[in-house]
Amino acid sequence: MIPMKLNENFQKLQSSYLFSTIAKKVAVYQAAHPQADIIRLGIGDVTRPLPPAVIRAMHQAADEMARAESFQGYPPEYGQDFLLEKIREYDFAAYGVSLEADEIFVSDGAKSDTGNIGDIFDVDNIVAVCDPIYPVYVDTNIMAGRSGDLMENGRWSNFVYLPCTAENHFLPELPKTHADLIYLCFPNNPTGMAIDFDGLKAWVDYANREGSVILYDAAYEAYITQENIPHSIYQIDGAKSCAIEFRSYSKTAGFTGVRCAYTVVPKELKRNGVSLNSLWARRQATKFNGVSYITQRAAEATYSEEGRQEVRDIISYYQKNASVITQGLRSAGFQTWGGVNSPYIWMQTPGGLTSWAFFDQLLERAQVVGTPGSGFGPAGEGYFRLTAFGSAARTAEALERIATAF
Amino acid sequence: MIPMKLNENFQKLQSSYLFSTIAKKVAVYQAAHPQADIIRLGIGDVTRPLPPAVIRAMHQAADEMARAESFQGYPPEYGQDFLLEKIREYDFAAYGVSLEADEIFVSDGAKSDTGNIGDIFDVDNIVAVCDPIYPVYVDTNIMAGRSGDLMENGRWSNFVYLPCTAENHFLPELPKTHADLIYLCFPNNPTGMAIDFDGLKAWVDYANREGSVILYDAAYEAYITQENIPHSIYQIDGAKSCAIEFRSYSKTAGFTGVRCAYTVVPKELKRNGVSLNSLWARRQATKFNGVSYITQRAAEATYSEEGRQEVRDIISYYQKNASVITQGLRSAGFQTWGGVNSPYIWMQTPGGLTSWAFFDQLLERAQVVGTPGSGFGPAGEGYFRLTAFGSAARTAEALERIATAF
Repeated sequence: MIPMKLNENFQKLQSSYLFSTIAKKVAVYQAAHPQADIIRLGIGDVTRPLPPAVIRAMHQAADEMARAESFQGYPPEYGQDFLLEKIREYDFAAYGVSLEADEIFVSDGAKSDTGNIGDIFDVDNIVAVCDPIYPVYVDTNIMAGRSGDLMENGRWSNFVYLPCTAENHFLPELPKTHADLIYLCFPNNPTGMAIDFDGLKAWVDYANREGSVILYDAAYEAYITQENIPHSIYQIDGAKSCAIEFRSYSKTAGFTGVRCAYTVVPKELKRNGVSLNSLWARRQATKFNGVSYITQRAAEATYSEEGRQEVRDIISYYQKNASVITQGLRSAGFQTWGGVNSPYIWMQTPGGLTSWAFFDQLLERAQVVGTPGSGFGPAGEGYFRLTAFGSAARTAEALERIATAF
Repeated sequence: MIPMKLNENFQKLQSSYLFSTIAKKVAVYQAAHPQADIIRLGIGDVTRPLPPAVIRAMHQAADEMARAESFQGYPPEYGQDFLLEKIREYDFAAYGVSLEADEIFVSDGAKSDTGNIGDIFDVDNIVAVCDPIYPVYVDTNIMAGRSGDLMENGRWSNFVYLPCTAENHFLPELPKTHADLIYLCFPNNPTGMAIDFDGLKAWVDYANREGSVILYDAAYEAYITQENIPHSIYQIDGAKSCAIEFRSYSKTAGFTGVRCAYTVVPKELKRNGVSLNSLWARRQATKFNGVSYITQRAAEATYSEEGRQEVRDIISYYQKNASVITQGLRSAGFQTWGGVNSPYIWMQTPGGLTSWAFFDQLLERAQVVGTPGSGFGPAGEGYFRLTAFGSAARTAEALERIATAF
């Protein structure tokens, strides 16, 4: 008997996940210092409550589900028309981008979508990843068998790496060799840096020339404050023939615990004559069953007049935190990036400390938790991420402690 | 330049999906007969509103999300403890099955889980499928590259087929050759037939002997009325070392539009020393981000005293429909199966008609829509499925029309 075979690529995955390692270190510290009042500026989860317009929409939708005449069964697989129309109008047409409703696929999260999108591609493709990077892009491609082997320098043999460091102002340079699938995230997690129109145009031109597909994660688009920064990759000429864009309500309306996102696959995007839109449509129709009616009504409410104002207020709250963090760190003598078009602040560790050594130092001296840059890839070594998603009072207190301790 | 490669397996998928073909045929008929009052007993979607206990829980959870002090961000990746405990107690301990909380993975749907579970297995495994079968099991394995080629008889060259016909009372016989992954769904969709303890024990013994993994879809477990039918595969000795079980709230509490389900992967289930529980945990942590807090509170409410009574009432409503359909069809001279432990009634087409020919005839003569058995696989040819998920009044009317027309 030949035994059944598991997906052996899973064995290549690093055994501990970044945030679980942080959680363990914090737990150990807390156990040793029961009185310590730890402030967490590490994980990218939001803390502000849902906007009132969203809450109202959820109550109303729940009541509809309570009556036979307005009960909703299986949702449309790709999203409710009422939500798709709002997305087209406010997220794209407002920026001069025209999309058809069936180019948009509503889902339960950008993590699901950026992970599952790999289903439509062959295993045999060269993947380009920024370094540092959101670990999900890397891990899902390891699982799918696109990584090759882990090398001594901490990189995977089959990936094309795009280092983002202080030298290039954390904006990746075009790859020297061919890449098929290119993950770009702007405004960036973890560095908080945004790409301008010209910078993104160079990537679109590269992808169209090379036949690559750009997987563009725009989950932090709502934090953009500067005018020369595109909100969508489709604001760049030619992007519809080379890019898939991922959006999320998690970091705008605070939907991390509600679960709603969407992915755009333009119909112009074809390879070997095959429409990627039709492949993703088939993938979702077969392995996904749509998003909760109540959740989609909640997402719709973020586009109402009140909803938009309330979402702006939430973002503005976090943006003030970002500013407090940036000012506080700079006053304490640290070098920082990001935070202007993003809820993430990226800083250099002092005195050449490794990211994890600084993690320990920050926890010991200030009882503040952040995220080691090396957790996002080898080029993140020597950097550190703080996030603006905490409460204003706690964020201010964290920066006061840092000012005192360093 | 070598162009990037798409997953070519997608090109093997049949271009039209069963239910979209039905929808088109119905639309054509309705356009030609604008006055026709069509009754749909075809699709497996529920129609009863959500139970009051569930609605109350959703309102309360929404209000918690409106306040900073009770706001919930990212859900735990594998499910909230409050829900996992209820699942352990009511769905398993009540039937003598002991599960640990970390053997249960809450998700947005059984369709997602039965599709995504393929991620943890190698492409090179032999898949056994019942025929007829829920198309998702087949299509997801085609996408993953496990199907081989479509043959003239309508079967895929690499699948092991387990025909379920009147001859074997729609219970599959053990495969004559080795199979690695075995999809079983009991009570069955589409045939409505259930498997008893002895019957399921034979499958568990086969899987343990052959090193196979059984993917057991128990989405219709709540419809079981007979005592000799297991509610969970884990009621069978030895199942924890060979089976993954899928459950759903869709057909119990009417959650098709709410989206909540769970998957059980016992820790005893290992192959080549690797725990499938740890693989699925890693898959979900990397490519999924948990279920909405409000939805999980809604699911929890189905286990309260009121919730359980209300869910029983809903199921009882559909069970009465199933009985009306069975009695009506039999009075009209048709042979039927299922409907006793299941919301599905499986019937033989009259006079040797093909499934689609009978679909047309039923639509023409009685303005009733059902599902052609051949849509579920070659062995479903000559059979037809009706579902009990309609309103009682419309179901009764449909059967009156059938009695008159046939």
